[in-house]
Amino acid sequence: MVHIDGDRLLNSLRELRSFGAVGTGVVRPMFSDIDMESRQWLVAQMQDAGLASHIDGVGSVHGRSRNPGPALIIGSHSDTQPEGGWLDGAMGVMYGIEVARTLSDDPSTSHFAVDVASWADEEGTYGSFIGSRSFFGEFPDADLELQNADGETVAAALERLGLASTPRAKYEPARHIGYLEAHIEQGPHLEDHDKLLGVVTSIVGLRAMQITFTGEQNHAGSTPMERRKDAGAAMFQFGVRVDERLRALAGPTTVWTIGNCRVLPGGESIIPGSAWCRLQYRDTDEEILHRFEAAIRELAAEMTAEGPVEVHGELRRAAVQPAHMDARLRSHLEAAAEATAPDAWVSMPSAAAHDAQITARHMPSAMLFIPSINGISHNFAENSADDDIVLGCQVLATATAAILSR
Amino acid sequence: MVHIDGDRLLNSLRELRSFGAVGTGVVRPMFSDIDMESRQWLVAQMQDAGLASHIDGVGSVHGRSRNPGPALIIGSHSDTQPEGGWLDGAMGVMYGIEVARTLSDDPSTSHFAVDVASWADEEGTYGSFIGSRSFFGEFPDADLELQNADGETVAAALERLGLASTPRAKYEPARHIGYLEAHIEQGPHLEDHDKLLGVVTSIVGLRAMQITFTGEQNHAGSTPMERRKDAGAAMFQFGVRVDERLRALAGPTTVWTIGNCRVLPGGESIIPGSAWCRLQYRDTDEEILHRFEAAIRELAAEMTAEGPVEVHGELRRAAVQPAHMDARLRSHLEAAAEATAPDAWVSMPSAAAHDAQITARHMPSAMLFIPSINGISHNFAENSADDDIVLGCQVLATATAAILSR
Repeated sequence: MVHIDGDRLLNSLRELRSFGAVGTGVVRPMFSDIDMESRQWLVAQMQDAGLASHIDGVGSVHGRSRNPGPALIIGSHSDTQPEGGWLDGAMGVMYGIEVARTLSDDPSTSHFAVDVASWADEEGTYGSFIGSRSFFGEFPDADLELQNADGETVAAALERLGLASTPRAKYEPARHIGYLEAHIEQGPHLEDHDKLLGVVTSIVGLRAMQITFTGEQNHAGSTPMERRKDAGAAMFQFGVRVDERLRALAGPTTVWTIGNCRVLPGGESIIPGSAWCRLQYRDTDEEILHRFEAAIRELAAEMTAEGPVEVHGELRRAAVQPAHMDARLRSHLEAAAEATAPDAWVSMPSAAAHDAQITARHMPSAMLFIPSINGISHNFAENSADDDIVLGCQVLATATAAILSR
Repeated sequence: MVHIDGDRLLNSLRELRSFGAVGTGVVRPMFSDIDMESRQWLVAQMQDAGLASHIDGVGSVHGRSRNPGPALIIGSHSDTQPEGGWLDGAMGVMYGIEVARTLSDDPSTSHFAVDVASWADEEGTYGSFIGSRSFFGEFPDADLELQNADGETVAAALERLGLASTPRAKYEPARHIGYLEAHIEQGPHLEDHDKLLGVVTSIVGLRAMQITFTGEQNHAGSTPMERRKDAGAAMFQFGVRVDERLRALAGPTTVWTIGNCRVLPGGESIIPGSAWCRLQYRDTDEEILHRFEAAIRELAAEMTAEGPVEVHGELRRAAVQPAHMDARLRSHLEAAAEATAPDAWVSMPSAAAHDAQITARHMPSAMLFIPSINGISHNFAENSADDDIVLGCQVLATATAAILSR
């Protein structure tokens, strides 16, 4: 059995955290200066692990084993949310490098091919899953116009960074036999059930809608209440009413969130003339996702009919379909988990989105979770126990060796 | 009877609009570059009207008649909201200059003293009423730390503009016998009642509270609904519930507005960990203002007790008390209105705040309104008919001459 180096893994993770560290958290949004510095560092780390590495034409970092295939890709993402945790994504990338290094250093596995990827923009600073989608030819030129919150397009970012004419890494069907991704759970399930590992069965589908409210901007003092078309007041109403409706339609694990909103122009003495909010919802059951979209559109139409503010909902970017993990790869993860931590693992769905849901459309894919302390993620306070981090990587290495041994 | 020059007035108003014009509206927030350019232009306009003029140590533009007192001050403000109309404030300042010029040019009134003021920051980009408060010694040094939305303090702005050691204009009790301010109504009352002029009886008091919501930031996919402490969802609930409560406590002319709000950190895939909104309310009846504040605090305490999000409300800046206009000055405005436009004027309260509510605490003050088309203000679409603008200025000139003739 191969053995990873836990201290080496933890030290490299801590070093990656130093790029964009804010307290115990990290601010490293896609294509920011600090994100690009961290990618250069990842290129060097991969080279040091014996891989041929580079940043490709959409910003993904790829490390390619110098061995011939069949090859497994192990990866995740190193970009973060506006206020991110230090493990989200980063851990899965460093697991890949540690597993590649471990297998390469062990004479019994040094002929195996492990390619490593840090996929660009998993967090959707510009458009989400840009790296994994591009890898499989699912990144149409139109998506180069996706913008970040500052209004910079992907095309402009690539130009700014000198990547505009760099080739994009591509899936090689003759080489790549599967994809493994490890990740913190980002929820409380493992901790609540005293488990150390989760083998993912399927990944939730996700939709996001932008709801816009169009009223009439006016003076907040001299406009009588009955004359108002307050777009902000309509948004608050919508927020409460949509919550009641979705609750009635939800399955046991459906989640929905209004993660951002704005009233415009945002003056204390001005009745908001317009407003918007973004409502995201997730489930492994596509039927529920359809029901949610219909209910949101229905409520918007009802509120418009009631007046005085017009309410309109539309889907933001392409919907993400639920994805199911590959049975054979899962069984290898389960066997490795059971061998390393008997009875301390469970099968579970992923309530969060991951690049593995893109890869699963094109090749066998599987995911491994480790516990998140208090279930907290997308927060500077996100953390996992060192022992849990090391255990997860060991299980991933064992499973990788077993898969490539066949 | 004195006669103003309507074309000269309209042309000067249009010239002032050109500073910060956006379509038919204006963006000229206090202490911005374009605001300071417009103040330099106002200094020149006042000088041309025979006044000794300058920008004082808090950014107000003062034009002082070269005649000895008794003097009337005529003024308003030339700063705008983030998206302002072209007449709000600006009209009252240009009325002052036009009246001073008219009286100065007429041999029968050329010995009268009319001082003109464009008070700094009426709109509250930093703190509201900075100019008029400073004039009466109501601008304590602590208020130099008031900030605009970009975090610049008043002190830093004055430093940036080279005004930090410029003296501040002061009320001269031996000279100043009263204050007149003309303004667009900013509401629909005059238009709805087919009137051309409003003589203001009192100005509403105003309070603003900042409500903060403290929950727990977490991942929007992997955090089950029952585990969440969603500060944004709590804010939407608050918005709806506070509206119901205030409606039950309101008088016939009370108004309240949530003009701005934010959920943080504002990521589509992040449950908001905190949120805030600003709720402003106005009435001429102070008792209602007290009831509102108590109701808002009570709702915040109730929601905190219900959980899971903590809600806290606190007053923003000093409360503005309702202000009553001076009976003698009002009677002069009424007489001038009746002489110029018989039966086409009304007495009415001001639902908007004005510098006259500051001046009224220290000297006799009165206000004159002209109609706003469709009652729209704090909006690029704000406008009034040219004839109405000219008529209002004529009435103000007539009243000014009558007051100073006594």
